[in-house]
Amino acid sequence: MSDATLAAHRARIERRIASWVAGLPDDGLHAPMAYLLGLPAKRVRPAAVLLAAELFGHDPDAVLDEALAIELFHNFTLMHDDIMDRAPLRRGMPTVHTRWNVNTAILSGDALLVKAYQLMARRPDVSAVFSAHALGVCQGQQLDMDLEGRDDAGVAAYMEMIRLKTAVLLSGALRIGAILADAPAADVEHIAAFGEHLGLAFQLRDDLLDAFGDPDKVGKQRGGDLRAGKRTFLLIRALEHSDARGRTELREELRRSTEARDVDRMLRVLGELGVEAEAVAEVERHHALALTALEAIAVPAARKAPLRRLAHDLLGRTR
Amino acid sequence: MSDATLAAHRARIERRIASWVAGLPDDGLHAPMAYLLGLPAKRVRPAAVLLAAELFGHDPDAVLDEALAIELFHNFTLMHDDIMDRAPLRRGMPTVHTRWNVNTAILSGDALLVKAYQLMARRPDVSAVFSAHALGVCQGQQLDMDLEGRDDAGVAAYMEMIRLKTAVLLSGALRIGAILADAPAADVEHIAAFGEHLGLAFQLRDDLLDAFGDPDKVGKQRGGDLRAGKRTFLLIRALEHSDARGRTELREELRRSTEARDVDRMLRVLGELGVEAEAVAEVERHHALALTALEAIAVPAARKAPLRRLAHDLLGRTR
Repeated sequence: MSDATLAAHRARIERRIASWVAGLPDDGLHAPMAYLLGLPAKRVRPAAVLLAAELFGHDPDAVLDEALAIELFHNFTLMHDDIMDRAPLRRGMPTVHTRWNVNTAILSGDALLVKAYQLMARRPDVSAVFSAHALGVCQGQQLDMDLEGRDDAGVAAYMEMIRLKTAVLLSGALRIGAILADAPAADVEHIAAFGEHLGLAFQLRDDLLDAFGDPDKVGKQRGGDLRAGKRTFLLIRALEHSDARGRTELREELRRSTEARDVDRMLRVLGELGVEAEAVAEVERHHALALTALEAIAVPAARKAPLRRLAHDLLGRTR
Repeated sequence: MSDATLAAHRARIERRIASWVAGLPDDGLHAPMAYLLGLPAKRVRPAAVLLAAELFGHDPDAVLDEALAIELFHNFTLMHDDIMDRAPLRRGMPTVHTRWNVNTAILSGDALLVKAYQLMARRPDVSAVFSAHALGVCQGQQLDMDLEGRDDAGVAAYMEMIRLKTAVLLSGALRIGAILADAPAADVEHIAAFGEHLGLAFQLRDDLLDAFGDPDKVGKQRGGDLRAGKRTFLLIRALEHSDARGRTELREELRRSTEARDVDRMLRVLGELGVEAEAVAEVERHHALALTALEAIAVPAARKAPLRRLAHDLLGRTR
């Protein structure tokens, strides 16, 4: 039942995106938007807008504009982040700055952000919430770049980074859906907390899958983050444990070039240091906190099934 | 009298900008905003918001947020355009991507656009107008990049480019000020038309000064656009006349490397072909159209003095 709700919302969103894309002028400013929006995606954030509105008795079709705005904003961040991260591929396809060029990716991204605001500006209170969350996402990307190559960053800085970069937009999507449904203020905060913990758990889970997931199921090479020396929760904690115990394998590997790194050895050390279990516990902790926040919302528990399903979809991926 | 009004508005805006900058966090995301906003500038666009509001009897202090938003948006476009144009200097100082790096200029610009919306979103109708004009500016930059290095672009394409890239934001600033003052719809259109013609005349004048102005007064090397081979009104028209008359000097010079170009020779040819006079006539035509639009506004003529003064300030620069 709830499964069907989520699937129906995703289908609704895909149709709305398709009709939006079909209306774009066929020129250099808009072609990259059509391209990026056309790549397969789970549409979790726009679905969250619809689910939140519906939870509070609002017609989900009435908030499709804001749901689309959230997805446009998300794609704007992908377009610009891919430039900053020098990423050649996105979902297995060339990134916008690779397929076109950096200038096009900057400018088309800018216009996409403006288009997100065009759809989000119906209510000043919603627009204000959107801006606050959008700034959080920018701060998260800044923090991500600041942390890169810094060896003194602790787990707290990493968690704050993923909170801003990943969790804040999911949280914002839910908050906006709830506000549009005129939900009570306390419930707006509960659903935002649900989104934030869900986003944190999802990102930690993603880090875990990168290191310990089945490459066939995850769809990328095992240990890509470790090879790149990316300071995720796992590597940060592993380095702390290593240093405390006088183990040097990880720092040895990090001194090598990325190509020369022995990822299997790094994974073995991570396992021995117990950071996999630590990260799994952290995912479960945030998942539980998300569900607690969901329970606190003053609507009948049965109506919350689609949101529980969303959490399950995001966190239930098998190894 | 009107002189004093414009100066007072500019002072008001400088104070508002200074206090906004003072409130920014001291970090990598915000330092570039403070830097760029701190460079000396004429604040024409935010002054236009105040002048338009005042023209329709509205308190200019009540629209300072929107005036600041327009200036933030303008600085966002400078930050990103300078990356795209690979400009090392802005007002004689290093551009943001030169002083920091491209990633910082992208991200800080993005956040600046969000902050512009935070100040512009008080009224959905104003936010919608702002978005429409913002998209025009993006389209103008796209057109500018499309025209670069294309030899078949005519004057019409160039005029459309500067309309979008330059005139649309001045026009938008005036429109927003008028809407905030609840001006009648017809007058909103008149003041927007005033801004658009003024912006066109200003940009053409700027092209003229680059080629024929006194370098000491203009503050940059004479003929910089010609040396760069930039297709402005002047060069486009000159090439059309040259080709029609079988003159080859300009195309010869354009085939040389930028360093090897004989700018004095190019200027001589422009003079002989009469394009300077043609451009001057075009500036005067748009100046006149701007004043006609201003006259059409249904408020006493005496109240329009500050806007006439603004036009004079923008177009009255001596050679």
